Amino acid sequence: MTKAPAFAAVDWGTTSFRLWLLAEDGGVVAERRSGEGLTSLTREAFAGVLERHLEAAGASTSLPVVICGMAGSRQGWIEARYLDLPARLDDIVDNAVAAPGTNRRVLILPGLAQRVEERADVIRGEETQLIGAATRFGAAGANGIYCMPGTHSKWVRTQEGRVTGFSTYMTGELFSVMAAHSILAHTVAGAETDPDLPAFAEAVVAGHGDPARLTNQLFSIRGRQLLFGETPEAASARLSGFIIGAELAGSGCTEGGGAVRLIASGRLAALYRSAFAAIGVSVDEIDADEAVRLGLAQAARSLRLTDTGRLSA
Amino acid sequence: MTKAPAFAAVDWGTTSFRLWLLAEDGGVVAERRSGEGLTSLTREAFAGVLERHLEAAGASTSLPVVICGMAGSRQGWIEARYLDLPARLDDIVDNAVAAPGTNRRVLILPGLAQRVEERADVIRGEETQLIGAATRFGAAGANGIYCMPGTHSKWVRTQEGRVTGFSTYMTGELFSVMAAHSILAHTVAGAETDPDLPAFAEAVVAGHGDPARLTNQLFSIRGRQLLFGETPEAASARLSGFIIGAELAGSGCTEGGGAVRLIASGRLAALYRSAFAAIGVSVDEIDADEAVRLGLAQAARSLRLTDTGRLSA
Repeated sequence: MTKAPAFAAVDWGTTSFRLWLLAEDGGVVAERRSGEGLTSLTREAFAGVLERHLEAAGASTSLPVVICGMAGSRQGWIEARYLDLPARLDDIVDNAVAAPGTNRRVLILPGLAQRVEERADVIRGEETQLIGAATRFGAAGANGIYCMPGTHSKWVRTQEGRVTGFSTYMTGELFSVMAAHSILAHTVAGAETDPDLPAFAEAVVAGHGDPARLTNQLFSIRGRQLLFGETPEAASARLSGFIIGAELAGSGCTEGGGAVRLIASGRLAALYRSAFAAIGVSVDEIDADEAVRLGLAQAARSLRLTDTGRLSA
Repeated sequence: MTKAPAFAAVDWGTTSFRLWLLAEDGGVVAERRSGEGLTSLTREAFAGVLERHLEAAGASTSLPVVICGMAGSRQGWIEARYLDLPARLDDIVDNAVAAPGTNRRVLILPGLAQRVEERADVIRGEETQLIGAATRFGAAGANGIYCMPGTHSKWVRTQEGRVTGFSTYMTGELFSVMAAHSILAHTVAGAETDPDLPAFAEAVVAGHGDPARLTNQLFSIRGRQLLFGETPEAASARLSGFIIGAELAGSGCTEGGGAVRLIASGRLAALYRSAFAAIGVSVDEIDADEAVRLGLAQAARSLRLTDTGRLSA
């Protein structure tokens, strides 16, 4: 028999919406995904989109909801203001904000802000993956360096359960704009990046070893094709490898000597696994979807969100 | 009285065409510019475009022409094959190729290729600026490091009159694609980069000092605007400054201790002058238009190109 859901967990980003109905123990009862992200919605539309997905998933009208991501930004449903660093993971949950315009209990988690001029940065959504990953890694998760690759890769440092600093690298976006809009577009046309190609590992090592030459390395991809007839597949692997290699250099991940905690799914996880291996850094992995779900479930427990309608029925 | 032209000099690039009628001593008699670059022309169209501009400039039907740039690429009028490194500046001129389909003497200068897999690179057009700059700097020009900023910035090393190596940085193109197609588009919207803003020099120093963090520094531009209300003008200056700073780090220009020879015009010259000053590197400057004209004139002299029609008339 399927367990009854105790609450709904939502990761509501810029371009995506993901909802899970979760049992008391965190088990997935139902799941919904759509493209109804922040950029496609007006402020008034959030409550309706949420209700529609809850109903389609079979949730009761009293099921409480916990949300992370851009829905809590100034342009979202309601602003859950950034917490300043250093921030305890518990502080994030304690600063959840109630969403208006709904009869349900809906709480939105805040993001984190690093208010240092030279390293001004914000995260929103990744802090919840971090909460999830920290529960998975237990006591060891309270100290460490976390890598969350993506369009904007996030590197987060935690010390004794506090987030002490983070950095965003525009890795995925740089890859996309160079592949689509630069002179390299012809060079990599139609090719997928294969993380198992030797060209990928070579480029990661070169990018990590000499990151100041990044845009020179990128241009050399075209030169290699012109002068040595390299394939678009190898060119795409090099484009990705140089940019990821530079990111790994910037992160300082080889300095501590410890394992990096990699929070990623699917193709991105495979790429970064291969990249870390190329520079000899060991990783502890957790799936990104699982991490955000674990984080939202942990928040729901801390916030004592339970389906009181269901319990009192 | 205007001097009679001895030859025509043409810099024929990917997206631009520039023609000068030059006197024996290199003085400019007439000038033409248009957007009829390589990408807008079929192979058969080159001769006609050249004739039309020569006629409009008042050139005789026997005036010889020397051309540099992409007109000599495989996709151009006729291929003037890349010379391999190390190449003497004189070798470039000696390997000029006669253009077909015209009754005039038209010679196209070759580019240079660096056939080293990890640093595979080509230049076409900049080698002629280099010839011009070397004539200007005299004996001192035979040894040194040259910077030719642009969409694809070129750094060239010469030793005893030979080009021993070069590197292309995608500086201008990275700035353009990030300003137009990335999340930073909103942050810098409508702003011009002012090389005199403190934000520009700060970003050059930061980009030069920690180039591995380039894409993190770029993302921090948005964070600064979000958290500290920085203006689009300062944001644009930082975007340019970080990318140029990383280029200067990659070039190793602070290592030799000598002056860098900067071949640039207008806004680009001002930006790089300011960037070099920010990291304490001295420069010797030559205007890029003048350099290519001097280079073409030097080539014409070496090739003994003179208007024999005119002389025999």
